[in-house]
Amino acid sequence: MYRSNTCGELNASFIGKKVTLAGWVQKIRDKGGLIWIDLRDRYGITQVILDESRDSAELLGIARSLGREFVLQVTGKVVERESKNDRISTGEIEIYPELLNVLNPAQLPPFLIEDETDGGEDLRMKYRYLDLRRNPVRKNLELRHRVGQVVRRHLDGQGFIEVETPVLIKSTPEGARDFVVPSRMNAGEFYALPQSPQTFKQLLMVAGFDKYFQIVKCFRDEDLRADRQPEFTQIDCEMSFVEQDDILNTFEGMTKAIFQEVLEIELPAFRRMQYAEAMQRFGSDKPDLRFGMEFCYIKDLTEGAGFPVFDNSESVIAINASACSEYTRKQLDELTEWVKRPQIGAGGLVYVRFGADGEIKSSVDKFYSKEVLQTWLERAGSKPGDLLLILCGNVDKTRKALNELRLEMGGRLGLRDKNKFEVLWVMDFPLLEYIEEEGRYFAMHHPFTSPKPEDLSLIDTEPGNVRANAYDLVINGVEIGGGSIRIFNRNLQAKMFSLLGFSDEEARKQFGFLMDAFEYGAPPHGGIAFGFDRLCSLLGGADSIRDFIAFPKNNSGRDVMIDSPSSLDPKQLQELSIRVQA
Amino acid sequence: MYRSNTCGELNASFIGKKVTLAGWVQKIRDKGGLIWIDLRDRYGITQVILDESRDSAELLGIARSLGREFVLQVTGKVVERESKNDRISTGEIEIYPELLNVLNPAQLPPFLIEDETDGGEDLRMKYRYLDLRRNPVRKNLELRHRVGQVVRRHLDGQGFIEVETPVLIKSTPEGARDFVVPSRMNAGEFYALPQSPQTFKQLLMVAGFDKYFQIVKCFRDEDLRADRQPEFTQIDCEMSFVEQDDILNTFEGMTKAIFQEVLEIELPAFRRMQYAEAMQRFGSDKPDLRFGMEFCYIKDLTEGAGFPVFDNSESVIAINASACSEYTRKQLDELTEWVKRPQIGAGGLVYVRFGADGEIKSSVDKFYSKEVLQTWLERAGSKPGDLLLILCGNVDKTRKALNELRLEMGGRLGLRDKNKFEVLWVMDFPLLEYIEEEGRYFAMHHPFTSPKPEDLSLIDTEPGNVRANAYDLVINGVEIGGGSIRIFNRNLQAKMFSLLGFSDEEARKQFGFLMDAFEYGAPPHGGIAFGFDRLCSLLGGADSIRDFIAFPKNNSGRDVMIDSPSSLDPKQLQELSIRVQA
Repeated sequence: MYRSNTCGELNASFIGKKVTLAGWVQKIRDKGGLIWIDLRDRYGITQVILDESRDSAELLGIARSLGREFVLQVTGKVVERESKNDRISTGEIEIYPELLNVLNPAQLPPFLIEDETDGGEDLRMKYRYLDLRRNPVRKNLELRHRVGQVVRRHLDGQGFIEVETPVLIKSTPEGARDFVVPSRMNAGEFYALPQSPQTFKQLLMVAGFDKYFQIVKCFRDEDLRADRQPEFTQIDCEMSFVEQDDILNTFEGMTKAIFQEVLEIELPAFRRMQYAEAMQRFGSDKPDLRFGMEFCYIKDLTEGAGFPVFDNSESVIAINASACSEYTRKQLDELTEWVKRPQIGAGGLVYVRFGADGEIKSSVDKFYSKEVLQTWLERAGSKPGDLLLILCGNVDKTRKALNELRLEMGGRLGLRDKNKFEVLWVMDFPLLEYIEEEGRYFAMHHPFTSPKPEDLSLIDTEPGNVRANAYDLVINGVEIGGGSIRIFNRNLQAKMFSLLGFSDEEARKQFGFLMDAFEYGAPPHGGIAFGFDRLCSLLGGADSIRDFIAFPKNNSGRDVMIDSPSSLDPKQLQELSIRVQA
Repeated sequence: MYRSNTCGELNASFIGKKVTLAGWVQKIRDKGGLIWIDLRDRYGITQVILDESRDSAELLGIARSLGREFVLQVTGKVVERESKNDRISTGEIEIYPELLNVLNPAQLPPFLIEDETDGGEDLRMKYRYLDLRRNPVRKNLELRHRVGQVVRRHLDGQGFIEVETPVLIKSTPEGARDFVVPSRMNAGEFYALPQSPQTFKQLLMVAGFDKYFQIVKCFRDEDLRADRQPEFTQIDCEMSFVEQDDILNTFEGMTKAIFQEVLEIELPAFRRMQYAEAMQRFGSDKPDLRFGMEFCYIKDLTEGAGFPVFDNSESVIAINASACSEYTRKQLDELTEWVKRPQIGAGGLVYVRFGADGEIKSSVDKFYSKEVLQTWLERAGSKPGDLLLILCGNVDKTRKALNELRLEMGGRLGLRDKNKFEVLWVMDFPLLEYIEEEGRYFAMHHPFTSPKPEDLSLIDTEPGNVRANAYDLVINGVEIGGGSIRIFNRNLQAKMFSLLGFSDEEARKQFGFLMDAFEYGAPPHGGIAFGFDRLCSLLGGADSIRDFIAFPKNNSGRDVMIDSPSSLDPKQLQELSIRVQA
């Protein structure tokens, strides 16, 4: 060992002891007669102090040759510090060095290794090994480790078995795009990397494993949005002989354990909400319940006034922004531009100001009397000082846009506190969703999700109205997990594939092994998968998952540190029987 | 929940209670008046009994319609069994059913779901989900889960952080062949799947993570030998500010914890042996120390007798097979054929029988007197009743062949007891190994392994004689883990690449990020990786890793259950800018 102690553990109880530390030079201050060195490792920072009147010229010389991030070994005596620093655990002591040994010098880092760095995203990613030295990033990954440990212990304690499923599997066109791997031994054939271990965990249920979990890498070759990664990690779980409630209760328990053990937060019983209700009240299947601002439907109150925009709209929906009646014209114009952006897609924004003095002013004063506006405010539960924001149009689009506006206003009003956690099960999702452009139904969750038995009779006549035994875990408006009770009957599974436009042959070719398995004694089963990266970033109070991943890829799917992907040796391509096509 | 209890938990304390069980029909016996159903789940087997004189025709009808592996829900009363079965935990009780509910019927399985099955390897793999129902296979995977949990808890307790490293990385030609993944977003470029997270864990040390581990999938596109898998799992570990001894002690601790917690075996302190000594005494860098039968070098005792085979050999080496002097001529001929097989490669086998009556007989009696043979026996420590087996030739080849013969004889003599564990650190491997066919040196461990400082002066003049700070953990003759202290200096790393035949440009292109990292404050570090599949199979007392992997691939790298790899849709290939080449 190059050290007797870490840079985080020395305190007053070590005074007088001789120790050896090893770490990185965080900072040097040279005040002529005195030199202070802050030595850092994963565990903390310890101050080393040299004194011209005490230390040898050689020692002082070494100290003066040091730069930031040099790797240094220090042997010396622990002494009491004159001016104590109570912000760090080692603040009571400092080291009088006898020996300074430069284990490795360092070039000047391209950005500051401090909590607040001057490095931009690109530079930080290229030198990720330096970025990872920064406390906030390291703490994120320590949190991730802790969450993984807690999950594993908890599920182990509940009788779950972690089983590793294969990474080299088979490509299936349903769902997102697969990453594929050419097989050298089977020329012209390819493996695919799993988008999830879905079929394998179901086979483990057929195999009688009863309770399975795995913390597992999954892969999707999608065009990357801001916070997506081509490889991501799931907490993947499946149970046999369960109904929906059993899954919800089991993973409510797991989620509570995580919050308890990682954040010391005791979550109350999770709320539950139907998908239809969530869409109605919040315009979202993952409502942020840290604040109210619920949708208020006022179409009926707007009729007969001759305002064509509302009259021609399928729906008119309002939200009430508390204490915003003083919004200036400029602010309201800016908000109007905001909702008209293509990402939001509203045609315009109508407002009603309910002044603190009781006065009502609106952008549609021309069409609506104070008395009518009053009925809107009443239904929305507005109080003097509030501001009513109204969107209109096709119901689905209006809900979607108003959801965005609600979240935006919640953010502006400081109602989305990162230290507050509102947890919700959203249940009974539709089984299918019709995609106009493709002219067919797609599975809303995935093709293995079971319809609700009471809706089964609709499957031929109104497939779009069949609800699924599917559920999402939503925390603070973020989908943290999702799952379903699965189909375990061959005929129903075949029916599902046919609804999704599979020919019998395609279904057999791609999922024949699963349908066969259902004929050899498949138990009722269901499960859930949690987005591990996102769960960690939520627990860490961050918006982005990127700093909860040690070596993330950028938006072009590149690892700029190792410079990957890269071109291959022609010999490699030849061995794999493939050619790059311009 | 479809059940109130599992099929493994009911005992006398439940007598009189009403329970609901769900599981698979293991067996039905219909003795006319009585019908017994054995209901199985992961946790055990419970007997259900029907009686014509008690049960309704309907219930009896359902029972008689059942087949093996039907999924059945049973509600009924727990009663005391008349003839108890003390081999199973539920042997005190049985169930009088009130309700039998077939949750899913089952086709007759293609092989017996019993501890001893009649299914061949191919059939078992095609229906792996049925094979996994068998107790021995399920227990292997339960053991694997347990080992993973113990490792994680132990390393977490020692301050290690589990960090996930990326799966989509960069291809490097050194080492085994990579699996590659075409990048759609970066046309003509490829990711590679990691053969190990080696460079990433080293970067985590540069990042100050201090103690890292990961249980992680790795990939090698090699022609598969009997017990190799294209994807396999490692326990991958790295530490900073350590020397070789620190690593050995830390992972001796981990290994002991595994044996203690999984097998309740207290391992004694691990032996340590130099590579050179292991080769000298056992002809192997992974000697099986469950038995002796050490090499005995007798070249000097064979000289001057005019036996040209020995006279022309670089070495003559013997092993002593205890109590084998009664081997028949036929047995000895068979053993001679065995060593002459191309896999072993010996030219022939010389023996000396030391009869229980003291008589000495040998296949080289013509050349050697009893007195000379006596000197061989003495050096080998042979006792009356023993058999000396002798190979000769080039020293490396002879050691290699004699190692195989030693292991074979150990097996034949029952000296390789699966319930006995002999653990050994083999240390100080050569840094480089010269491969004749390639005309250059290769890294014996990998290019990041540090030479022993005391051998550094030989690196230009006698690179083949430089020893490395490298070590293997060997248990019962199986290499379970291997690692090294790493290079952490840019110049030494560059030197190493140049010894391995890399041009400066190749080294920079492939490993520039690592060499750069060494210039920004890299600490001394080292690590180890354990073969998780093999460790589990060793703990489970099996020779093959295949049944410790839930869904293994066959020797052609195929998953015959899901039929993968498979051909791709031409559209997929086009998106990836690749073409299959005949």
